[in-house]
Amino acid sequence: MNAFGQEFRVMIYGESHGPSVGIIVDGVPPGIALKNEDFIADLDRRRPGSAGTTTRKEEDLPKLISGVFNEFTTGSPLNIQFENRDVRSIDYSAIKNHPRPGHADFVAYKKYKGYNDYRGGGHFSGRLTVALVAAGVIAKKIIQPMHIEAILSEAGGQTDISKAVEQAINQEDSIGGIVSCRVVNVPIGLGEPFFNSVESQISHLIFSIPAVKGIEFGSGFAAARMKGSEHNDPIIDSSGKTASNFAGGINGGITNGNDIQFRVAIKPTSSIRKEQESLNLEKELIETFQIEGRHDACIALRVPVIVEAVTAIVLADLHLTQVR
Amino acid sequence: MNAFGQEFRVMIYGESHGPSVGIIVDGVPPGIALKNEDFIADLDRRRPGSAGTTTRKEEDLPKLISGVFNEFTTGSPLNIQFENRDVRSIDYSAIKNHPRPGHADFVAYKKYKGYNDYRGGGHFSGRLTVALVAAGVIAKKIIQPMHIEAILSEAGGQTDISKAVEQAINQEDSIGGIVSCRVVNVPIGLGEPFFNSVESQISHLIFSIPAVKGIEFGSGFAAARMKGSEHNDPIIDSSGKTASNFAGGINGGITNGNDIQFRVAIKPTSSIRKEQESLNLEKELIETFQIEGRHDACIALRVPVIVEAVTAIVLADLHLTQVR
Amino acid sequence: MNAFGQEFRVMIYGESHGPSVGIIVDGVPPGIALKNEDFIADLDRRRPGSAGTTTRKEEDLPKLISGVFNEFTTGSPLNIQFENRDVRSIDYSAIKNHPRPGHADFVAYKKYKGYNDYRGGGHFSGRLTVALVAAGVIAKKIIQPMHIEAILSEAGGQTDISKAVEQAINQEDSIGGIVSCRVVNVPIGLGEPFFNSVESQISHLIFSIPAVKGIEFGSGFAAARMKGSEHNDPIIDSSGKTASNFAGGINGGITNGNDIQFRVAIKPTSSIRKEQESLNLEKELIETFQIEGRHDACIALRVPVIVEAVTAIVLADLHLTQVR
Amino acid sequence: MNAFGQEFRVMIYGESHGPSVGIIVDGVPPGIALKNEDFIADLDRRRPGSAGTTTRKEEDLPKLISGVFNEFTTGSPLNIQFENRDVRSIDYSAIKNHPRPGHADFVAYKKYKGYNDYRGGGHFSGRLTVALVAAGVIAKKIIQPMHIEAILSEAGGQTDISKAVEQAINQEDSIGGIVSCRVVNVPIGLGEPFFNSVESQISHLIFSIPAVKGIEFGSGFAAARMKGSEHNDPIIDSSGKTASNFAGGINGGITNGNDIQFRVAIKPTSSIRKEQESLNLEKELIETFQIEGRHDACIALRVPVIVEAVTAIVLADLHLTQVR
Repeated sequence: MNAFGQEFRVMIYGESHGPSVGIIVDGVPPGIALKNEDFIADLDRRRPGSAGTTTRKEEDLPKLISGVFNEFTTGSPLNIQFENRDVRSIDYSAIKNHPRPGHADFVAYKKYKGYNDYRGGGHFSGRLTVALVAAGVIAKKIIQPMHIEAILSEAGGQTDISKAVEQAINQEDSIGGIVSCRVVNVPIGLGEPFFNSVESQISHLIFSIPAVKGIEFGSGFAAARMKGSEHNDPIIDSSGKTASNFAGGINGGITNGNDIQFRVAIKPTSSIRKEQESLNLEKELIETFQIEGRHDACIALRVPVIVEAVTAIVLADLHLTQVR
Repeated sequence: MNAFGQEFRVMIYGESHGPSVGIIVDGVPPGIALKNEDFIADLDRRRPGSAGTTTRKEEDLPKLISGVFNEFTTGSPLNIQFENRDVRSIDYSAIKNHPRPGHADFVAYKKYKGYNDYRGGGHFSGRLTVALVAAGVIAKKIIQPMHIEAILSEAGGQTDISKAVEQAINQEDSIGGIVSCRVVNVPIGLGEPFFNSVESQISHLIFSIPAVKGIEFGSGFAAARMKGSEHNDPIIDSSGKTASNFAGGINGGITNGNDIQFRVAIKPTSSIRKEQESLNLEKELIETFQIEGRHDACIALRVPVIVEAVTAIVLADLHLTQVR
Repeated sequence: MNAFGQEFRVMIYGESHGPSVGIIVDGVPPGIALKNEDFIADLDRRRPGSAGTTTRKEEDLPKLISGVFNEFTTGSPLNIQFENRDVRSIDYSAIKNHPRPGHADFVAYKKYKGYNDYRGGGHFSGRLTVALVAAGVIAKKIIQPMHIEAILSEAGGQTDISKAVEQAINQEDSIGGIVSCRVVNVPIGLGEPFFNSVESQISHLIFSIPAVKGIEFGSGFAAARMKGSEHNDPIIDSSGKTASNFAGGINGGITNGNDIQFRVAIKPTSSIRKEQESLNLEKELIETFQIEGRHDACIALRVPVIVEAVTAIVLADLHLTQVR
Repeated sequence: MNAFGQEFRVMIYGESHGPSVGIIVDGVPPGIALKNEDFIADLDRRRPGSAGTTTRKEEDLPKLISGVFNEFTTGSPLNIQFENRDVRSIDYSAIKNHPRPGHADFVAYKKYKGYNDYRGGGHFSGRLTVALVAAGVIAKKIIQPMHIEAILSEAGGQTDISKAVEQAINQEDSIGGIVSCRVVNVPIGLGEPFFNSVESQISHLIFSIPAVKGIEFGSGFAAARMKGSEHNDPIIDSSGKTASNFAGGINGGITNGNDIQFRVAIKPTSSIRKEQESLNLEKELIETFQIEGRHDACIALRVPVIVEAVTAIVLADLHLTQVR
């Protein structure tokens, strides 16, 4: 199923080179002010075009097909749709028979028995994240005063991110990065013990973002090397505020009122200009081939706003289903 | 909701000091041979008692309340129940008013408005993982010939795990660890692109295990420092086998036929004998207190079989819902 | 899946002749007073023993396995379990090979490939409705001040129900009936337009009750012969009260604040003492056979409290998920 | 939630006077041949325009936004979209303040706090059934060789349906009817005992169709007056064929291999030209008003193809989730 959520429910559709991509957002309360301009800031953060990202031009004007009337949400499902305009199909023709290493081309061919739309990655394309960002804009309105901030804290192992990207471009290669995310003004009590802890749900959606390889909350992997006496966050007042935040704002799967904190590992873009070897699906032989087209040297640059969006989707769902 | 799964669906219930804990397993195909002895090996791996784990004696004989007839599954829901026998309620009385740092006591009190069963952590207790292990035994039968193997590869930052545990016991402290998991004989095509990638679903359930702080697939956090030209796994034959496995056996959220590989970070046990400070919920004051009772110096010792169980649950669900 | 509900979620388990039957109830808010005696009145209404119902003795003392602490719900899942004590397996041995006409024996054998527990109908037994009634007791507390009342308004085509039952007993036959249900104090706005109208959800659960053949809301089948000018219920005040109630309290799938009204058709009990013909599954021949054991001449006598229970389950779920 | 289904999942969106209505269909297997013409026959059956139905012109050309490539389904979600072209907003302006008796206007206003799109019934409009019919076209392909046939067997209490409609038109009134549905070539074993019987699921979706007031399977309401000895369908061969079909092809919630048979009661159209009284929402007074615009004298004429569609959706879902 291409859906997520209990009360705030999203369902995504579309292919990179089809007429449109979009997202259905169900469970949005009525009376939320919403107009096209509300999407611009977040969509701009995701948009390609800066150094290290593809130069493919995506105007990304969302069309609100349903669920909005007189610039307020109605309580009915929203269909937020983005036309695919700047599509150069020729760039991707080679992948019909040559699944790109590191991409979903091979598994899509096998899973869907050759019927998948292979152009530009089809339904697996990063293009669909535009729809996630749009749903995130609405989710962010619902979860107020909770506020989410994600940044690219490291790229290619460096904190001077511009320099790291420049190097990658010069080498015709690509680099990964780390996205750090923090949520403030979190109420106590979001999440369920089994099987829907806050970490369960956030990680579930974070791993829907292409190129994510890992997630850690609070102390994360460092916890494996800590002692209990160091790791336990002392509660320092009756609101539950803790002196440290190794828990990442979550105990037993439930928010404890401190900031939610997590970090996400992003792999280097799989599409690179360098010659690579791969399978020729038709001939069933290994061949050398080269990926044409426009690619991101550092896809991680575009990921923070997507991390914010999916986190907002999860929190909106938890917010709307919390114990009353 | 305390449930997980689409076609293979589990729902957990019980409290540490209630009469029983257990799990409902729905969607089990009829005709799977199942008897009580089938649970012993996995339950033994989870059982406390070795150095570094609590000496609380849990006989853990599962009772098959429903869904099994003449030692075969019937196709109806299974209720697998474990009586709570060796319960010393007195050990935990202090926590009624003193939420233990690092535990769910405080959030449970707040979320459930003081009505939660606080004894031994109640529904949040690690005791409930016995039910996960039991469901895992059934799931492992369903997913054959897929096979899962999880090990504790590191504890307290050391690979000599016995030594690390001994040190922690001597210091009346606790340590964390890393669990490494591998699944072999994986078919191509499990998982869904949005929002139910294999990583989404595995991480979802892994974060249902108490004490988990992070998860990474394949290259994981190291990917953030790699280049695309290194990270792309070259396909070397028509079955999709790859020379390296930085993908962890998953591309675009879908299994690619190589081994699924992931690592899980486990925090040090929160319950330690050392004096700690915490909130007195009644007086709304910070006080010093000490946790009595039996505790694990290294809960991570008991986690590998639970990681296997929840991974099996996810794979059974994916196996039963895969594209036909 | 043997589950129902979004926020108030039930999952049923057990077989007629297994150790226990029961129900998991998840999503119950914390702090609801609940003790064993609360179940007695409704369980008594379902209990067999009056004229026209089987003389099988079911003590039906519910055991609250989880989710209740100090006689209040905790917010964790409840497991309400009923032991099967008065089981005479010998009565049902014939059905292993002779699927009873009008029963699920044949389809259960086929669907579960012969692995189903055939004793007493197994998981298909009316015995499981005891668990529905128990869940209903909790649901009724949640939906207050909404109040549900179902009665057997007609049996065997007669309104003198005792007389109709007596006749059926004398004829060693069985009769059906009509259950009429009314819900009062209904708020405006429960239900969803597509696909989860109040009628959708109530009918969904009503058709989980064995022996139900039809359901109609408000005017029901009579509407097919009415004119629009008669059928439209005029709104007579600003609270939405209507002069007539052909709508059955629901417009466009949403409650309109008037009483919800519906009627349910119950077929005659399939188990009768008369000789019948059926398939011998082993020999694959049609044979004459006779059902032994204790049976209800009018199962409809026991249905009203079950109708109330499942209606309460639906309304509790809607109540907990309504637009906030 | 505006969604239905486990493995074959539909999610509907749109408003009568918004830019488009449509449906997302997820879980469609890859490789099903599908082109625009495939929708024409069923859409024509639903189309208004014959005597007794509104003269509103709906071209109803579906646009396949996603999930189809080279005229085959890809395995990704389909978005099937219908533009709203022939919209005369002025007709419906009166209903902003005057909720039409028998319509959802009043409950929509209350449930969505006045933010609902009231034009033409908004999201509650019968217009959305065009999307159901489209999803049904795909579902019908999936369930082959099962075949569904629904007819209007009675209108206004008469079997000469044309005459009944003519009378209603002359009286400026509207009439209801009965739709009879039969499914042939049904395999044994579809459906789940609790809570997802075939009747549960079919009735769930049938009550998503506007104007439905009741449903009965097989013997239906007549069963309430029958005896067990009459009602039990004798099995006459080893395939499970029965001499009679009072069960409607379903025992214990599971298909028994005989035809599924059910009947649906449709109320008379609520929109009539006659003057009616209703609430003025703004003034909170009861006033006389008259509905302008184009209306169906007998909406039941258009319902059979919608009954087929939703039945196909249910059966496709059951088919894709049946015991393997």
